[in-house]
Amino acid sequence: MGEAGADAILISQPNNRRYLTGFTGHDSPSGSSAGWLFVTPTEALLLVGFLSLEQAQRECPDFGHLDTAGKPAVLVGQLAREHSPQRLLCEGSHLTYAAFNELQAQLPAGCELVAVEGWVERQRASKDEGEVAKIQRAAEVTDAALQHVLGIVRPGLTERQLAWEAEKHMREHGAESLAFDVGVAGGPNSSLPHNPPGERPCQSGEPIWIDMGAQVDGYCADLTRTFCLGEPEARLREVWDLVHRAQQAAIAQCRPGMTGREVDSIARDIIAEAGYGDKFGHSLGHGVGLVVHELPRLAQTSSDVLAEGNIVTFEPGVYLEGWGGVRIEDLGVIRGGKVELLSAAPKRLVVG
Amino acid sequence: MGEAGADAILISQPNNRRYLTGFTGHDSPSGSSAGWLFVTPTEALLLVGFLSLEQAQRECPDFGHLDTAGKPAVLVGQLAREHSPQRLLCEGSHLTYAAFNELQAQLPAGCELVAVEGWVERQRASKDEGEVAKIQRAAEVTDAALQHVLGIVRPGLTERQLAWEAEKHMREHGAESLAFDVGVAGGPNSSLPHNPPGERPCQSGEPIWIDMGAQVDGYCADLTRTFCLGEPEARLREVWDLVHRAQQAAIAQCRPGMTGREVDSIARDIIAEAGYGDKFGHSLGHGVGLVVHELPRLAQTSSDVLAEGNIVTFEPGVYLEGWGGVRIEDLGVIRGGKVELLSAAPKRLVVG
Repeated sequence: MGEAGADAILISQPNNRRYLTGFTGHDSPSGSSAGWLFVTPTEALLLVGFLSLEQAQRECPDFGHLDTAGKPAVLVGQLAREHSPQRLLCEGSHLTYAAFNELQAQLPAGCELVAVEGWVERQRASKDEGEVAKIQRAAEVTDAALQHVLGIVRPGLTERQLAWEAEKHMREHGAESLAFDVGVAGGPNSSLPHNPPGERPCQSGEPIWIDMGAQVDGYCADLTRTFCLGEPEARLREVWDLVHRAQQAAIAQCRPGMTGREVDSIARDIIAEAGYGDKFGHSLGHGVGLVVHELPRLAQTSSDVLAEGNIVTFEPGVYLEGWGGVRIEDLGVIRGGKVELLSAAPKRLVVG
Repeated sequence: MGEAGADAILISQPNNRRYLTGFTGHDSPSGSSAGWLFVTPTEALLLVGFLSLEQAQRECPDFGHLDTAGKPAVLVGQLAREHSPQRLLCEGSHLTYAAFNELQAQLPAGCELVAVEGWVERQRASKDEGEVAKIQRAAEVTDAALQHVLGIVRPGLTERQLAWEAEKHMREHGAESLAFDVGVAGGPNSSLPHNPPGERPCQSGEPIWIDMGAQVDGYCADLTRTFCLGEPEARLREVWDLVHRAQQAAIAQCRPGMTGREVDSIARDIIAEAGYGDKFGHSLGHGVGLVVHELPRLAQTSSDVLAEGNIVTFEPGVYLEGWGGVRIEDLGVIRGGKVELLSAAPKRLVVG
């Protein structure tokens, strides 16, 4: 609070709120918040609606709890009159423009509402051992579901069927939910880095990728494998080996102190040297935590500096329009000066 | 556009964008948008990222398509310089405070950025026959899953197991996803109107409710039933009959032209007369469409006027702390001057 030059802070973003308090309430899809965290130098209060009050009290015994009566901005106005902060920080990349203005209108004269961005998100980038253990568990649930899918996949199963098999396995073996919708793409569909699973049946000899992640105790995993049923054509083996080599190099050479751009370049240079530089149209990776896309970013546009405790994906890909694509993704934690993989699912091109 | 006094409109809210264009792209959970709709008197453009461009072109052939290159605000700035609008409307209850400011900074002098609220949401409240058919189908998928759950439920199954059985049935019988997470609560847990399903096993004689909805072609359903395994105690039968009677009265008497408050009062008065007025702690219902909570609202605080084509829930409830709760919810469309139910799942207290 000192470094931010503020004497009160309002946290509204649900994952930031959970990170700081342990409160697992979900905001409603229609936009109403499960609660706001209001912090002053002497108090930490959860402002929650009637429906979530009991849950907040049970989950966060070290915090105060106030009922918003459906009007959180009005309650913050009352608190601001009691505590008289001069600068109240809020999250400008979460509060909507309308909510910011509604809140500002409730504040007493002399209290400035200051929007900041990324304040808690930057703290979330470094995981403690408890968080690492949860992500490790999410990765294990994800690995097991991949093994299940590789055990049942055969020509004729559709993308949608494979995605559902993966989801069911995760949900029935320890995942409270998914980190994101399972992606599956085969043949020409696989040349799009993201593909909603459809009715196309898998065929022998073509690239098929699956991108999936479980969520356990709020924490996410993220894993991609590309495989082929039966004998791959020569180009598929060539591209798969290239992507695999680029990924392994990035994992082996990644060190704390490097920028996201430097780590991205390790993989990107290898792919570019092989002539596929313009076919790797996304970044190498991203942080993973309570949300599947967090800081730090491993990308050409990223100046984030990697540090101990970061958990990131390594997921280079090569996509050839009309033919297909290959992506291989693992999750690793930066620990003891290097990358320790959290994903343990086997990487092999040929299945069945 | 005329009535809004604007000469350009920017739509960023994903369901509003889908409603106006048919584009089904999903915004990423990390906050980045799948695309913005930019409309002038002469052009309707979808501004989408590289990853969604092909999808937008396929799904929305009647719109123009521009690649945002990851910077939608910059692109809107360019378009504003080309089209020279004087007033550009945006969605103040969707754009974050930071995004609003970033966008404003990109606009040329003479172009005012005006935040409005609920503009498309109000249009979405009246469904056309195509939308009614999709919600009807979502309701049928939901009804079938309820039948499945009632067929397998027995003492000892946990809330979580019942919720997963309901979800699997919906997902394997026509639902592309869920309208919301399935809620299940038994015994004392059922006295909270919302309860994340936990490890508590169902027991005979107690109230158990399940609240669920499938999503089909983007459109949602919403259904709640309260039941009892074996013989209910006298109070459960009394409360169940009361809630059922209040619900039936609201459905029978609801007419276009009434306010949301008037419809809410039909059910609320019956519950209050029986002495449970303070135990019905939520509103009677809400509109349902692309999102499970839409306009109009049926609540004491609602002045929304009901109209033909509205699709709303009727879901009175009575909750007694420490004992349990009863809620019965159906979905209906206002058509031909009255309510036609879209839910057809049986309502009976005693199961098994």
